[in-house]
Amino acid sequence: MVTHKKLVLGIFGFGVVGEGLYKVLNMTPSLNATLKKVCIKHPDKKRNAPAELFTADRQILLKDNQINVIVELIDDADAAYEIVKEALLSGKSVVSANKKMLAEHLIELLELQKQTGASLLYEAACCASIPVIRNLEEYYDNDLLHSINAVVNGSTNYILTKIFDEKLSFKNALIQAQQLGFAESNPVLDVEGYDALNKWTFLLTHAYGLLPDKEKLCFTGIQSITSEDARQAEKKECVIKLVASAKKLQNGKVAAFVLPQFVKKDDQLAFIKNEYNGVVIESSFADKQFFYGKGAGSLPTASAVLSDISALSYDYRYEYKKLNREESNELTNDFYVKAYIGFTDWDHIRKDDFESIEEWHSNESINYLIGIIHFEKLQTSSWWKENNVSLVLTADPIIESLDIVKLKKRSLVLAGFSGGNHLS
Amino acid sequence: MVTHKKLVLGIFGFGVVGEGLYKVLNMTPSLNATLKKVCIKHPDKKRNAPAELFTADRQILLKDNQINVIVELIDDADAAYEIVKEALLSGKSVVSANKKMLAEHLIELLELQKQTGASLLYEAACCASIPVIRNLEEYYDNDLLHSINAVVNGSTNYILTKIFDEKLSFKNALIQAQQLGFAESNPVLDVEGYDALNKWTFLLTHAYGLLPDKEKLCFTGIQSITSEDARQAEKKECVIKLVASAKKLQNGKVAAFVLPQFVKKDDQLAFIKNEYNGVVIESSFADKQFFYGKGAGSLPTASAVLSDISALSYDYRYEYKKLNREESNELTNDFYVKAYIGFTDWDHIRKDDFESIEEWHSNESINYLIGIIHFEKLQTSSWWKENNVSLVLTADPIIESLDIVKLKKRSLVLAGFSGGNHLS
Repeated sequence: MVTHKKLVLGIFGFGVVGEGLYKVLNMTPSLNATLKKVCIKHPDKKRNAPAELFTADRQILLKDNQINVIVELIDDADAAYEIVKEALLSGKSVVSANKKMLAEHLIELLELQKQTGASLLYEAACCASIPVIRNLEEYYDNDLLHSINAVVNGSTNYILTKIFDEKLSFKNALIQAQQLGFAESNPVLDVEGYDALNKWTFLLTHAYGLLPDKEKLCFTGIQSITSEDARQAEKKECVIKLVASAKKLQNGKVAAFVLPQFVKKDDQLAFIKNEYNGVVIESSFADKQFFYGKGAGSLPTASAVLSDISALSYDYRYEYKKLNREESNELTNDFYVKAYIGFTDWDHIRKDDFESIEEWHSNESINYLIGIIHFEKLQTSSWWKENNVSLVLTADPIIESLDIVKLKKRSLVLAGFSGGNHLS
Repeated sequence: MVTHKKLVLGIFGFGVVGEGLYKVLNMTPSLNATLKKVCIKHPDKKRNAPAELFTADRQILLKDNQINVIVELIDDADAAYEIVKEALLSGKSVVSANKKMLAEHLIELLELQKQTGASLLYEAACCASIPVIRNLEEYYDNDLLHSINAVVNGSTNYILTKIFDEKLSFKNALIQAQQLGFAESNPVLDVEGYDALNKWTFLLTHAYGLLPDKEKLCFTGIQSITSEDARQAEKKECVIKLVASAKKLQNGKVAAFVLPQFVKKDDQLAFIKNEYNGVVIESSFADKQFFYGKGAGSLPTASAVLSDISALSYDYRYEYKKLNREESNELTNDFYVKAYIGFTDWDHIRKDDFESIEEWHSNESINYLIGIIHFEKLQTSSWWKENNVSLVLTADPIIESLDIVKLKKRSLVLAGFSGGNHLS
């Protein structure tokens, strides 16, 4: 019945994931795969594997006709792209976990797959152990995908969990995450949202058939979240999560961003604690479906890589069906969001950008407002990321129609608010 | 790139799911599928669809060469089998939601698929909207599947949720479930575990490549669970769930059953409330992954059927890879479980069957014990399902080795317990 192809692997990189994969392969005898060579940068470093497995010369792998699968597990996104490109061009299938490379080169990589017929799989690059790409690609392949909301970065989620559950300060929570190895050595990539943004860029391809320019996606991280913001969340029976979001609006266009968000304590996303990841997929008829699992770490990531390798033995490939639809989807910034804004100085808030402000508090210890703002105004400005301003979207933040909003704005104008009045 | 096959559908059944599918199809223009005919039992009943769509003659669908997909959504498992068989034999692909038919006829249906080359998909038959079969088949296709634990029956879960969260009696909770349409008109199928057993039978095929005889799988439902059992669960910071379980033991064999179980309140399974379903998959390296969603209802089920139809347009089929492995898995009853037993009369308990009894209470209002018993002794007896005896496995119930257990039994013997002493 099924043809189970014999795989000969060449691995690039022997860091935590590479070494994890080496272990996992040794414990998976039923997979018809042989590891032939591992390419590493520093050949003199001591490794937990036989020395003859290693080389520092990438061409030894790429020019080896026996090797039919390249597994790319290195950090450097540019070098990774060169390797993956050359591997695909020589007809080898590729498994990669490099989210940055995918976020920056997916269009070229699509073209290369088409041109060469070789397959590129990368389940490990988003949510590690959760098979979210495979499910979006294969199972949610119809036009009923309402929304997708996800926690895709384990270290920010770990920090937020400690802030809420153990009342740690942001700084101490970050130190703990770093000690446990959940945060990158350069924590900016995690904490300021770059890692989540990279993942979201290509997840939108599999969710909605979009190929967004990551420079144009609106995002931030959790760097400005204060204990005061956490207290305000608690008052609303919420926690704060860094949520990667996409929603199909009534006009058929797609709203997408990566921003901190208030999440009701009984929401599925609130169930995701510590370094875990989770994805909530809402489809028109099936209500919400929730996928949850370890989003980082050596073995969970290696296990996702292994599932991709196993899929290659059956000639699996992403078909990118949603990209090839007649009616393609389109991103839009033409909608409103309701947001909480914490701040220290009222002058740093562009209050005129708001359509309405529903709530504001300003005293010695608390400064915040909750208002409705056009998304384009967030996307094209950065005041809300600077000067200790913290932005947290409210639960269910997207507002498509302005009718009700306009009335509220008018009522606030009548109440004497607007036009630059300082409240503090 | 992808060939998107034109589908012409014939549907059997126009009950809640059939009508749901009709609606969903009308709202999914991108799916290249036309509904040609619906076969129903009672042609005179008024339907929310054009009259010319309906026929009571099954041959009109089965002999129509244009129809290339039969969607089987009827109740009667025997009639369903006849229809599916004839459809496959005439080269039509089939989508079914009939768990009873699958549990009883999977072996013949496998043979028919092989013989005809036609594809039979049935994602909707287990956990409705959760793509559990597809994930087990495609993503967890390696020998690393540690365990799978699932809540697969929505109505028993609804009843248990009401007993725990709202302190309803079993009887009142059942009435509510029936009023809301979550329970079958014959509640015995849900409440006594038959529905969960049917689903588990073929889920074991996709999880472990097993083809179990459902008559030999050990199961019960929640019919004997009392408020007192619920109170004991609360004391242990647990809830009670009807859990379908399978675990690969250290000897490589698989333990599998459907039994009520204490579930710690912070366990993923405890997150599943009301009519929802959920599946926790544990693999050796990826830790636990949790899939959660609506497990019943017209539209969630129809949406799963739709995803199968959509998959057929790309010629998708289950490859049953795990069945075709060289080293196949095997079920075993040779292990121990730790169980809580509630009872009204001590004489109804076969206490000599226990290897050890760790805890017992007996007074006017409470009668229970917690002990370790060989699984074979449960599987081959029924005292624990009769005479108001309730069995609930403890959290993490499987014990593979007896060394520690033996010591404990000895200590209980020394303490004067055993050999039929009555404690009440």
